[in-house]
Amino acid sequence: MQNANRRLVLAARPDGFAGPEHFAEDTVAVRAPAAGEVQLETLYVSIDPAMRVWISENPGYVPRIEIGDVMRAFGIARVASSGDPRFAKGDFVQARVGWQTHPTLAARDIEPLPGDPLDWMGLLGMTGLTAYFGLKDVGRIHPGETVLVSGAAGAVGQVVGQIAHIEACRVVGIAGGPEKCAILTGELGFDAAIDYKAEPDLAAAIARECPGGVDVFYDNVGGPTLDAAIGALKIGGRVVICGRISQTAAAELYGVRNLGLLIGRRARIEGFVVTDFAARFAEGRAWLAAQRDAGRLHQRVHVINGLESAPAGLGMLFKGENQGKLVVKVGE
Amino acid sequence: MQNANRRLVLAARPDGFAGPEHFAEDTVAVRAPAAGEVQLETLYVSIDPAMRVWISENPGYVPRIEIGDVMRAFGIARVASSGDPRFAKGDFVQARVGWQTHPTLAARDIEPLPGDPLDWMGLLGMTGLTAYFGLKDVGRIHPGETVLVSGAAGAVGQVVGQIAHIEACRVVGIAGGPEKCAILTGELGFDAAIDYKAEPDLAAAIARECPGGVDVFYDNVGGPTLDAAIGALKIGGRVVICGRISQTAAAELYGVRNLGLLIGRRARIEGFVVTDFAARFAEGRAWLAAQRDAGRLHQRVHVINGLESAPAGLGMLFKGENQGKLVVKVGE
Repeated sequence: MQNANRRLVLAARPDGFAGPEHFAEDTVAVRAPAAGEVQLETLYVSIDPAMRVWISENPGYVPRIEIGDVMRAFGIARVASSGDPRFAKGDFVQARVGWQTHPTLAARDIEPLPGDPLDWMGLLGMTGLTAYFGLKDVGRIHPGETVLVSGAAGAVGQVVGQIAHIEACRVVGIAGGPEKCAILTGELGFDAAIDYKAEPDLAAAIARECPGGVDVFYDNVGGPTLDAAIGALKIGGRVVICGRISQTAAAELYGVRNLGLLIGRRARIEGFVVTDFAARFAEGRAWLAAQRDAGRLHQRVHVINGLESAPAGLGMLFKGENQGKLVVKVGE
Repeated sequence: MQNANRRLVLAARPDGFAGPEHFAEDTVAVRAPAAGEVQLETLYVSIDPAMRVWISENPGYVPRIEIGDVMRAFGIARVASSGDPRFAKGDFVQARVGWQTHPTLAARDIEPLPGDPLDWMGLLGMTGLTAYFGLKDVGRIHPGETVLVSGAAGAVGQVVGQIAHIEACRVVGIAGGPEKCAILTGELGFDAAIDYKAEPDLAAAIARECPGGVDVFYDNVGGPTLDAAIGALKIGGRVVICGRISQTAAAELYGVRNLGLLIGRRARIEGFVVTDFAARFAEGRAWLAAQRDAGRLHQRVHVINGLESAPAGLGMLFKGENQGKLVVKVGE
């Protein structure tokens, strides 16, 4: 049905993991674009850990999604019909398309998208930019330093490790399972990988793989991993808090006990949100694209099919079932 | 006995609080200074929270004190006999004199001490410098910001609050008991004080006294106070970890649960050690002395008498029984 916009709306707020039971599908008529609007055909939507935060009772730094609202999601799309002179039918664009097949959005909220559209879901999109600004601006890495990354086989973690490698750092990744670890030390060029599921003592494993200590810990998971990594920080060490996927849906928050070590280590823990760097996205994308073109930077994209698979995809992230950037293919 | 050096040596490593049972007194002959040495008469020794760390099994960032060693301590002294041309009998100096009445030290480890000697135990000594560099360089305060200080009636906390006030910040102190709180909002010029012993919910009390949130939290205590303060941080907030007196002698470390908030708040937690700023101590002392001379900066000194009272003094700190900088008067 050409004139139908299939949507997934929030049906219930999850307590723990989010999944299909928290969303409902409906179909509404496609809305023709008014002046200044563009009507799109969604090609891919992104599945990101932050989405679990957006549907929580109190997300804190962004407005929450209300029951009945279309799920918010970054994505890429093709223009089907334009009410704005900057966009024409057939243009590829990126936007917060949401979990819907045929959104109609304000043109001011849409960005044109040169090159391979799928690049913009990962390497040149929020994923790559989050890795780039978090590691370079918040973590302030220097050549020769030791960089430890948690969630290393995830979308952001993979890019973080490769950037650190390009910048001549020693890179150690933490991931779950031998298959993910093999990808890290294989095609992605990490110097070592720690399979946290196979290690009875994560602190001991970090000490073994980072014998001189950790200069920068890029954290995507939080909880006990963060505690162990703080214990391994060198003097002057930095912890970049990008995410905390182990805690986002936890019934009870883990208490971090090692903060007192920050004094003697003269160490720093800092959180950030990538959109604060929006004025410098062009700089970040130019660097990422040049390194990709030089063959040094790869993004593994994990594609699942059909808008209806998106809620299950959100569950996959929190169970660590994805390898690389998770996206949902919505249209051709 | 003019030729006797009374000393307090570490007799046993404490598990919890330190006290008289962990030290033993002995008396040895005063050692005449060799070339390059100076023999001193101790006037005051300082009692600092860090001393409890120095006698622990694994202090981390400084060598531990061994059983049988004289307790390490900053202090001020008068030169009794000099083997170095830079010092003469009768000069006032500062040094790591230790808990002993008549130390003989290398001249290179001794600093001359102009002005009122007692100033150097607090405002112009490590206490004032710790407040100055922690608040200005680590905390990077700006006029108009809200500064929250824990351990506010303690040696460093008092100076932190006054510096923040001089720099046109709103200053809220956390201390134990109405008497300490009255000193903060009275003679020390804090805008508000929170008596944590009288507050059933510290987070609610912080929210009440810092209605717009906290820009800089200068933490001397750690534990649940740190957790509550992280919850009150504004976007871009900074936590300066100076000490953690609630945790230093704790049987079990408190787990901080609010670290995930650092992401959305774009906030930072950073530890420091004042000796890293040694190259800039003259700058800090000039600022502190000028503000003192202008009548804007005061140091309450809490004096206890006799070298033998020093171990009990260390216990007083951890029970919060001191008001301001705690020193032991050892000689005239």
